[in-house]
Amino acid sequence: QTMSLGLYDVVQFALLGAGFALFAYFVYAWNSKDEVSVRYRPSALAGLCLAGVAALAYALLYQDWDSGFSLQGEVYVPNEEARTSEATRYIDWSVTVPLLTVELLAVCSVAGAAARALRFRTMAAAFLMIVTGYLGSQVLSEGRDRTALVVWGLISTVFFVYLYVALIGAVRRSLPTMGAEAGASLRNAATVLLASFGVYPLVYAVPVFADVTPAWFTSMQVAYSAADVVAKVGFGVLVHKVAKLRTAEDV
Amino acid sequence: QTMSLGLYDVVQFALLGAGFALFAYFVYAWNSKDEVSVRYRPSALAGLCLAGVAALAYALLYQDWDSGFSLQGEVYVPNEEARTSEATRYIDWSVTVPLLTVELLAVCSVAGAAARALRFRTMAAAFLMIVTGYLGSQVLSEGRDRTALVVWGLISTVFFVYLYVALIGAVRRSLPTMGAEAGASLRNAATVLLASFGVYPLVYAVPVFADVTPAWFTSMQVAYSAADVVAKVGFGVLVHKVAKLRTAEDV
Ligand SMILES: CC1=C(/C=C/C(C)=C/C=C/C(C)=C/C=O)C(C)(C)CCC1
Ligand SMILES: CC1=C(/C=C/C(C)=C/C=C/C(C)=C/C=O)C(C)(C)CCC1
Repeated sequence: QTMSLGLYDVVQFALLGAGFALFAYFVYAWNSKDEVSVRYRPSALAGLCLAGVAALAYALLYQDWDSGFSLQGEVYVPNEEARTSEATRYIDWSVTVPLLTVELLAVCSVAGAAARALRFRTMAAAFLMIVTGYLGSQVLSEGRDRTALVVWGLISTVFFVYLYVALIGAVRRSLPTMGAEAGASLRNAATVLLASFGVYPLVYAVPVFADVTPAWFTSMQVAYSAADVVAKVGFGVLVHKVAKLRTAEDV
Repeated sequence: QTMSLGLYDVVQFALLGAGFALFAYFVYAWNSKDEVSVRYRPSALAGLCLAGVAALAYALLYQDWDSGFSLQGEVYVPNEEARTSEATRYIDWSVTVPLLTVELLAVCSVAGAAARALRFRTMAAAFLMIVTGYLGSQVLSEGRDRTALVVWGLISTVFFVYLYVALIGAVRRSLPTMGAEAGASLRNAATVLLASFGVYPLVYAVPVFADVTPAWFTSMQVAYSAADVVAKVGFGVLVHKVAKLRTAEDV
């Protein structure tokens, strides 16, 4: 698929802009982790690690985008490098979404063996949600098979629903154990995370309903990039606030 | 050997996903090493160093994979870059497996001259295990000679058996010297490490018994990548827990 100059530039903005935002957050997380006590440090470390992975993934996405098209006359024509961009996103998520659930759970008040079991289950569900989505959108007939898209999308959605239920439950149970201010931030953090989660299946479903024109493709890249920044940076900053407030409460 | 798009993408997922996971663990190890006292710091440092090497090795593996094939019509056709992937793995292991034994022994309770001698022997055995395996699978007739595969595989297995015996012995002797919780985690860590060790000779033996089709090749890459993540990240997180618990006990 060829891209007009304007659309090409919009995608470039989305990829490089999200990459820069994630890199800035990586530097922030690295330098602010000591603001929270050891009790909430695992949350800060999860945020730091996932920021590093996401920044790297966007470096690759940008690199593939940059070298994946050549300018011929007034349009960008893709070469084979352009093929991998979707895959890179899923691979990024397979590591970062499990870490996002760790980041959230580590500022909740679930402790001991129950916490370990819950953390294990949400990490596994997040990983399986992404892998099954990858099978549908990439591995089987390169996402051009509508049936595969729908079937694997539905399997993925089962894990998605479990994640929602498990995370909302953990947040609900934790709210009474913390001060009002920390509680409000925790509620916001969970809302931001789960709302941004909703963007991904919508974008995934686009090829089921529409023919992916360059304009659609561009919108999908912008949506994914914006959702990644909200789910990682916006969410991360809110979680950091919860951890800081709870650190102060615990003293 | 040509690869279909689907299988190519699965290998890409395994390589880049393992690379991201190892990179995340590298960032984690870097930022959490001060959570353990100086007594167990060598373990944390061994984990950090091997994570760095492994993340780099996967960057190379991914890079070779990405540039090692070109898309021709609907299949990926390998070029000469594709040859090195197996070698990169063995070279990675020749450094990281000796460090894994250091990481484990440094949270055990063997001290003084006995510890130094044991550490030296396990590092040497791990190194020789990998080098002899490399000779069989890569250097001699490029792993296509079944006799060489079997003979060097068996020599390698001698070191493998020594490693099992030495590491299990050290863990056994250390368990009574620590609290129950730390002991349980140490047992888990050793189990995870030694169980994941078992994957490698199985994958090594595939060409002895089967013709390496693209599907086999893909399974081997996925198995190696998953085992690497389990043996380095899963094991490392458990060892870190042992070191943290023992740090608290020692106070
Ligand atoms: C339900 C569902 C999906 C959900 C994906 C999600 C929820 C991804 C979240 C990614 C995040 C939060 C990345 C962070 O930056 C898929 C895999 C698209 C496949 C279709 C069904
Ligand atoms: C016994 C045996 C082998 C064992 C290899 C092992 C045990 C490798 C472990 C690697 C690890 C743990 C990497 C960490 O990420 C070889 C060399 C395949 C050759 C065949 C015989």
